[in-house]
Amino acid sequence: MYIGVDLGGTNIAVGLVDENSVLKYHKSTPTRAERGSEEVIKDIIGLINETIRDYGISKENIKAIGIGVPGIADPTSGEVIYCVNLGWNNIPLKETLETELSIPVFVDNDATVAGLAEYKIGAMKDCESGVFITLGTGVGGGIVINGRVRSGFNGVGAEIGHMIVGENFYDCNCGRNGCLETFASSTALIKYTEKLINEGKETSIVRKVKGNLEEVNGKVIFEAAIEGDYVANKAVDRLVKYLAIGITNIINILDPETIALGGGLSGAGEFLLKKVQKEVEAVRYMKMMPIGKIVLATLGNEAGIIGAAALGM
Amino acid sequence: MYIGVDLGGTNIAVGLVDENSVLKYHKSTPTRAERGSEEVIKDIIGLINETIRDYGISKENIKAIGIGVPGIADPTSGEVIYCVNLGWNNIPLKETLETELSIPVFVDNDATVAGLAEYKIGAMKDCESGVFITLGTGVGGGIVINGRVRSGFNGVGAEIGHMIVGENFYDCNCGRNGCLETFASSTALIKYTEKLINEGKETSIVRKVKGNLEEVNGKVIFEAAIEGDYVANKAVDRLVKYLAIGITNIINILDPETIALGGGLSGAGEFLLKKVQKEVEAVRYMKMMPIGKIVLATLGNEAGIIGAAALGM
Repeated sequence: MYIGVDLGGTNIAVGLVDENSVLKYHKSTPTRAERGSEEVIKDIIGLINETIRDYGISKENIKAIGIGVPGIADPTSGEVIYCVNLGWNNIPLKETLETELSIPVFVDNDATVAGLAEYKIGAMKDCESGVFITLGTGVGGGIVINGRVRSGFNGVGAEIGHMIVGENFYDCNCGRNGCLETFASSTALIKYTEKLINEGKETSIVRKVKGNLEEVNGKVIFEAAIEGDYVANKAVDRLVKYLAIGITNIINILDPETIALGGGLSGAGEFLLKKVQKEVEAVRYMKMMPIGKIVLATLGNEAGIIGAAALGM
Repeated sequence: MYIGVDLGGTNIAVGLVDENSVLKYHKSTPTRAERGSEEVIKDIIGLINETIRDYGISKENIKAIGIGVPGIADPTSGEVIYCVNLGWNNIPLKETLETELSIPVFVDNDATVAGLAEYKIGAMKDCESGVFITLGTGVGGGIVINGRVRSGFNGVGAEIGHMIVGENFYDCNCGRNGCLETFASSTALIKYTEKLINEGKETSIVRKVKGNLEEVNGKVIFEAAIEGDYVANKAVDRLVKYLAIGITNIINILDPETIALGGGLSGAGEFLLKKVQKEVEAVRYMKMMPIGKIVLATLGNEAGIIGAAALGM
């Protein structure tokens, strides 16, 4: 058995995963990152011990613990180098957990880990190569080539959300302009929709949130788009346009067998997928040549735990 | 011994390369592609036989023949799928040569094989991963990861010149707008310089080519830029700006250990390299993290033959 930990800005989820990457049991607790890394790590350890106890397995039967973190990690040292949402800088996560638990610990980026899960048992199963793109609050990426996760030589690869794909009306959190994340995340979708609303455009979105614009989210926008709302479709089409540039750039570089779309916005399902497939086909290079499949990720939230556990396999 | 063939739009170059990737002997002949693929392939076979005879080696001692082609090839079937400069479509190059010569033949893209050469004995030697970028008439790419060439699952990867990096005042040959090739090739540099000249900007470039604007080339523009000419520097800086976007995008996806710049424009040497390094450092993501080295390719024109030969090793 393996343990997978999905360390997020909102929740810590810990699960037991078997040799076939099947999630057997899991539980979670709020992260409350504002308490600092020491308290959060204490909670991770506590939750791991509870999970082992609840499931009635002995600690000796846990072969490894894998952790996906929302930021940059060094897979070799197991150090969390930088997590903006957690406020973590250079936290020796692997070392601390191994000292406390005496089980081997592996650490990597959360989108990378979710991509690994999709590769093991999800949308990219048995692929020669796959790129997983999370469309959530931000845009993240996980790359698997010939069965190996590719986080890069310095650990700064698979940062697909920070590919430059155009010029935008606002800067990215990273300080640059034009990052894919500022076009294709739910944050980006909401920002652009609000811009259209503030310019006085009529839309059913305002009615849906009863005039409270702070309630506008990706789900509401996609709902309105599916119903034919002009503003919502304009916002979705803009997202799709730049996401397609990002995807064609990935194809021009890596040409993966499969590209899987996950994260909150992928909840829009076939409506989003068909638009993305159509736009990529319209703008891609070398139309006489085949390209990889673009599909929806299949594992949802469980990908984080399953992929983290897979780090230790 | 191995034979490497660099099949270009202008010349066919054939060379004998030893086990250590040292080029022992080579000769070339004009391609004259307008004659059609049959005649060109006859010349390739003739040149291979001449090379073997001239060097005084027996055919049995040639372990393999590798060929780099200026377009898309299927490394598995050895078919040349598409070469716009040669006017080739679905040419069974491997099959034809193996039938004629009874030596195993391997085919891949020319920039990919040049990258392989730089990886074997050049600027990317002993790297965990490297991306080679040719800045010539077009922009090409060669990717090596963990000792393996990466041309993609469908053979449409490493097409770095067709990454979208912005909006441009003219469309790419491929029909799209914003390809790296339309900003960072010698063709692009010349086009933008001519645009500035046509807008009436004063420049020493006009004097250098004695008023004959058709003589403007990358070398002249870089020469003028090094001498401090305003227009030339404006054109070079624009090239550098978009090349840096392309390079940071490659880093955000693959994060290679080394990025090597080759092709005709890399003849501008340190002047170009320093500008590119500085611009990448200025615009890149996650400045607290290290990134790979950006260097000049070292093998020059020989990379094509050496890398092609390496396909068979």
